[in-house]
Amino acid sequence: MNTKPLAPEILISEVGPRDGLQSVPSIMSTADKCRWIDALVAAGVREIEVASFVPRSLLPQMGDAAEVVQHALRHPGVTVMALVPNRRGAENALKAGVQKLTLPVSASTAHSLANVRKTPLEMVEEVRGIARLRDELAPHVKLEAGISTAFGCTLQGLVPEDEVIALAVQCIAAGADESGLSDTVGYANPAQTRRLFKRLIAELGSHAGAAHMHNTRGLGLANCLAAFEEGVRTFDSSLGGLGGCPYAPGASGNVVTEDLVFMFEAMGVRTGIHLDLIMAAREPLMAGLPHEPIYGMTPQAGLPKGFVQGQSQHAALSA
Amino acid sequence: MNTKPLAPEILISEVGPRDGLQSVPSIMSTADKCRWIDALVAAGVREIEVASFVPRSLLPQMGDAAEVVQHALRHPGVTVMALVPNRRGAENALKAGVQKLTLPVSASTAHSLANVRKTPLEMVEEVRGIARLRDELAPHVKLEAGISTAFGCTLQGLVPEDEVIALAVQCIAAGADESGLSDTVGYANPAQTRRLFKRLIAELGSHAGAAHMHNTRGLGLANCLAAFEEGVRTFDSSLGGLGGCPYAPGASGNVVTEDLVFMFEAMGVRTGIHLDLIMAAREPLMAGLPHEPIYGMTPQAGLPKGFVQGQSQHAALSA
Repeated sequence: MNTKPLAPEILISEVGPRDGLQSVPSIMSTADKCRWIDALVAAGVREIEVASFVPRSLLPQMGDAAEVVQHALRHPGVTVMALVPNRRGAENALKAGVQKLTLPVSASTAHSLANVRKTPLEMVEEVRGIARLRDELAPHVKLEAGISTAFGCTLQGLVPEDEVIALAVQCIAAGADESGLSDTVGYANPAQTRRLFKRLIAELGSHAGAAHMHNTRGLGLANCLAAFEEGVRTFDSSLGGLGGCPYAPGASGNVVTEDLVFMFEAMGVRTGIHLDLIMAAREPLMAGLPHEPIYGMTPQAGLPKGFVQGQSQHAALSA
Repeated sequence: MNTKPLAPEILISEVGPRDGLQSVPSIMSTADKCRWIDALVAAGVREIEVASFVPRSLLPQMGDAAEVVQHALRHPGVTVMALVPNRRGAENALKAGVQKLTLPVSASTAHSLANVRKTPLEMVEEVRGIARLRDELAPHVKLEAGISTAFGCTLQGLVPEDEVIALAVQCIAAGADESGLSDTVGYANPAQTRRLFKRLIAELGSHAGAAHMHNTRGLGLANCLAAFEEGVRTFDSSLGGLGGCPYAPGASGNVVTEDLVFMFEAMGVRTGIHLDLIMAAREPLMAGLPHEPIYGMTPQAGLPKGFVQGQSQHAALSA
């Protein structure tokens, strides 16, 4: 029960409106997307990946990207982020007023070719081109290069750790402001997560970016914990675990925002996100996607009896 | 691909046949229980809580406890464990030939009274009586006191950490060989798990026992990771996440054995359990309980491509 709230210690970057919506067959209406984004902001979310700037023919779910960005920009204090797969997408995103671009750069050549028909090194050149474009059109906009399949790949299996780190270093050299690591297919384990983020932070310092972990094999929160303990302070997750690669009920892809916020807040790590309100943000999500399964164990179980947010159990006991 | 297997580094204690079966309405036949236990042993499980010695009228699921113990004792190298709520149960368990007894001692007075109609201190006296009985009848048998509601209680809320540790110390002084901590209702977080196990190990040394964590709010594996990093080397879990307090699909109570084994093996921590065979042990479980939901994300998603058990990804890459 703090009278003046302390500054958050970590940033939870909500990817549901992009990564989540892009992965499901249903299409959410623009009005529903805006309601959902408003609810996320009301809960205290400070960074939201709201859309993907790709041709409407490829991803009809993202056909209203510019409108959604326009709406999100009404919220002061929120970083409005969008995924761009290439220079053309970046141009459209910058024209729409996006404040942070994220470009996926796959460490697995097999995945990169299958996904964007470019090798990882060709994607580094894409980063360079987008960074130049950003410098011309909107120099205040941040550019993130997210290294996907950083922990393994369903096509090529193991991804050498040296190559992952080298690729992140090249992305920063090419003009990205930050480079994070994504466990695109849910292969990561906590020991590997520690090793890779330790190296990433050692190499990139303040340019080291987010941990984007998946929960495909149930290790999502354990991996986020390991990354936090190595110094990572930005975590991607998705409300209701929407998106990723769901195999079966309960086997969601993305880490569930609600569970992630609960874990950190219960540990006494301030997220800036209000637990009751982030759970309430499920309502517009479910209303906008009535036929999609929504995950999350904390919302199902409820908060522990006697749990007071902003007051760790330890602090409560010594009070 | 080791030619001679190295010794396991941790002990995963399977509680499904007791904790799991006790929590579901269906009754598994004795023959099915035995088939399931055989499959667990074939996978390399070295400690199994096979039954609970309580009056048949209270828990008909456990009416065949002595028979199941007899069957499990045929497996050399496996510790056959049973839960006993009191001295009478302990007597029956010892007569049946059980090799390790576990007695639940609740740190929450409210929970203790509701559950066994005794206060925590009265339960310490029960430990003393059972330890004496064990010394007379079967001095080689180990006695564990599991401190339940050690991380919080649905009845009283917060449980003071000093009381949890003091209770564990009293149980050891009363004659228990080891005392572990149970997150009976899934309230634990990784910071609290670290604090409590650190204190437990500092106070009890080699008498510090298992981490029995639940996955009610999705933090089960993260809490096991935190406990491991503090030095805990025994973990309770249940095949298919059977048991605990399931609220909804995916929201199982007990930590899922398959996911726990995957996490540790992927980290390069040897469990002694064969991943393919522990997943195969789901077959007799599902056959014996056809109407109960069985959880587990690793079994649903499958092992990562290129994953070789006994060879961490790091080791594979430097080879």
